Amino acid sequence: MKKVLVSNIGMLATPKGSAAKCGKSQGEIEILRDAWVLIEDGMIAKVGTGKCECAEGAEVIDAGGKLVTPGLVDAHTHLIFGGWRQNELGLKLHGATYLEIQNAGGGIQSTTNATRSATEEELRDKAAKALDEMMGFGTTTVEAKSGYGLATEHELKALQVIKDLDEQHPMDVVATFMGAHLVPAEYKNDRAEYIRLVCEEMMPAVKEQGIAKFCDVFCEADTFTMEESRKILEAGLKYGLRPKIHADEIEAIGGSVLAGEIGAISSEHLIVCPPEGIASMAKGGVIACLLPATSFNLGAVFAPARDMVNAGVPVAMATDFNPGSCPCLNMQFVINLGCLKYKLTPEEVLTAVTLNGAAAIDMADKVGSVEVGKQGDLVIWESPDLDYICYRVGSNLAKTVIKKGVIV
Amino acid sequence: MKKVLVSNIGMLATPKGSAAKCGKSQGEIEILRDAWVLIEDGMIAKVGTGKCECAEGAEVIDAGGKLVTPGLVDAHTHLIFGGWRQNELGLKLHGATYLEIQNAGGGIQSTTNATRSATEEELRDKAAKALDEMMGFGTTTVEAKSGYGLATEHELKALQVIKDLDEQHPMDVVATFMGAHLVPAEYKNDRAEYIRLVCEEMMPAVKEQGIAKFCDVFCEADTFTMEESRKILEAGLKYGLRPKIHADEIEAIGGSVLAGEIGAISSEHLIVCPPEGIASMAKGGVIACLLPATSFNLGAVFAPARDMVNAGVPVAMATDFNPGSCPCLNMQFVINLGCLKYKLTPEEVLTAVTLNGAAAIDMADKVGSVEVGKQGDLVIWESPDLDYICYRVGSNLAKTVIKKGVIV
Repeated sequence: MKKVLVSNIGMLATPKGSAAKCGKSQGEIEILRDAWVLIEDGMIAKVGTGKCECAEGAEVIDAGGKLVTPGLVDAHTHLIFGGWRQNELGLKLHGATYLEIQNAGGGIQSTTNATRSATEEELRDKAAKALDEMMGFGTTTVEAKSGYGLATEHELKALQVIKDLDEQHPMDVVATFMGAHLVPAEYKNDRAEYIRLVCEEMMPAVKEQGIAKFCDVFCEADTFTMEESRKILEAGLKYGLRPKIHADEIEAIGGSVLAGEIGAISSEHLIVCPPEGIASMAKGGVIACLLPATSFNLGAVFAPARDMVNAGVPVAMATDFNPGSCPCLNMQFVINLGCLKYKLTPEEVLTAVTLNGAAAIDMADKVGSVEVGKQGDLVIWESPDLDYICYRVGSNLAKTVIKKGVIV
Repeated sequence: MKKVLVSNIGMLATPKGSAAKCGKSQGEIEILRDAWVLIEDGMIAKVGTGKCECAEGAEVIDAGGKLVTPGLVDAHTHLIFGGWRQNELGLKLHGATYLEIQNAGGGIQSTTNATRSATEEELRDKAAKALDEMMGFGTTTVEAKSGYGLATEHELKALQVIKDLDEQHPMDVVATFMGAHLVPAEYKNDRAEYIRLVCEEMMPAVKEQGIAKFCDVFCEADTFTMEESRKILEAGLKYGLRPKIHADEIEAIGGSVLAGEIGAISSEHLIVCPPEGIASMAKGGVIACLLPATSFNLGAVFAPARDMVNAGVPVAMATDFNPGSCPCLNMQFVINLGCLKYKLTPEEVLTAVTLNGAAAIDMADKVGSVEVGKQGDLVIWESPDLDYICYRVGSNLAKTVIKKGVIV
């Protein structure tokens, strides 16, 4: 048995439990001073304070009196894509219109083209580099969506890459099928046929290969209507894929209401979520997965996080890492934004980026808190306390990242 | 003679010249493809494209086909301070008022107390760590202000630390005297006496010891009025200190107008700068040193950068690194904000964080562009082009930082 003792922890800060926290309890975390964590075979075996009497033969990782938290959980990323789209920023700043950018070969379709023409190996290498970087910032569990393939072959390719990464990379990578990211150019005049393809061809194949846990849909004015989204998510349920939904990012067309009605595990974005959406999510037990770095990048308003917490909707926060609206993979920036823009407390923010993120991807029994029986996923921070990692902007404060008891 | 060849540069992007760029020329940069830079004894000796025939015996640094720019210049920091103030963020988010925070020992006075009680060595070690980190993000020249001592002994101590750092650390560190940062608690009922102290006791000592180039003043409703600021800056001029001025950060009380009238080398913040301030700066040849990360941290609006460029005021951008309003020392985040919030083009932003920053601290003859005769200060970026470093948020893209021809 491999024993690892993380000792000399100045402040251990963690939410507790195996389900998402909501309402007041979102901000209830445990704080231990002068603490230690014993990890056996990658799992947390014991947590205590003062002197640890049970660590004989353990490898010791000295936390140097610093802050330790659970590894961060990034519960919403579009990890698998070909190319980047930096040229669009330059074009926009030089005055190009949306249409001119489209005509210059830009926009989401350009990512679809690049993703389709990339090999599995190319996509894997690129995503693995991103995972390495995420881990360096303190993330130890990631959700990853398909959704730039938009054809059976290429959606399956993306999900296969996610599966391979989960097996080969130290990061836990949880897969979401998102064939309904948008209607690709070739189906522009027959969206019903594309939806049929998603539900009747892609989903059975995804189920057969067992390569996704969730089904996500982009419910928005220009992509899928509320009723189309319902149809797609209900089809997903038939194939064992739990529903997630991109809702109320730009316009509120009913996505968050649908999330509650259909019992989605989480609803994403929610930038312009109306009160009836919050009420429906509260009723349906939906986790709000908020993506503040996307608001930042788009120059949009920020989701009404406080209203959600007040209504008893558990709030998770993630990066939304993607090459269009959010080329940011750093959860520390998400932490900053949670405090500065959502005005959540440091305790609420910590819960949002650990336990609630884990619950949003059905991993809260394994990760998201420092508790006996969960994985030994920890971050030692170059920080004396929790406030400090919320306050410092732009520095990488993750000093040592530990995944299943191993420094990564 | 030590020769260093930076070869295989995919894109070399640099402004040119030895003075700040203003108006349209702010966005005029030189782009070379397949380029190289030859550095001899720390100075740029030759710049070219294709094969370099003049590099016999040179150490070769392979840029791997990536982007190379001048080292970044952070022209506005409050580098020297004791303590941090993360607890105030936590208190605020838990609902504490400004007064409650003051009563809990918070606010700028707490930084003054911590700075006064710190030794030179403690301040130097702390600042050196910050400089290391800044350099890791691509900054090779920094301005640093005193201004948390607010007593002759402690202002001189801070400036001595800056001098030591400039001599001992690879970073070029340029000193600004800012005794007029605020009126310290002990002079609350006799501000005239504090101003007398700044002008008649601190300034002569600063001049005698030759430890500052500039004099800065915080011209704001709660600190120093326009007329007090004028008096202080005019006194500084007598002692050979070129004027800088914190103006229009929260309220426009005439600081930017004064900047133009007095011929300040730069005016700082300018968040709410009125048209007459821009006109005065244009007339007086003042560089606008904008601090977008402070707007971000404060949740304030962003300075009217485009209006300044249009009016022919050269725009520089810096971090404002300090423990209160901006605990951010990362110039890459400033680059992001320049594009996303000021809507400056990537070319204008590059000029703002290199040549115009250098000009704002009277260093444009030495640094701020990749040109023969300037210091060999370069950044090799993990980036194919200029747009990409503007577009990616939250990742450290500085791959290799070179100061006077040496990898740091």
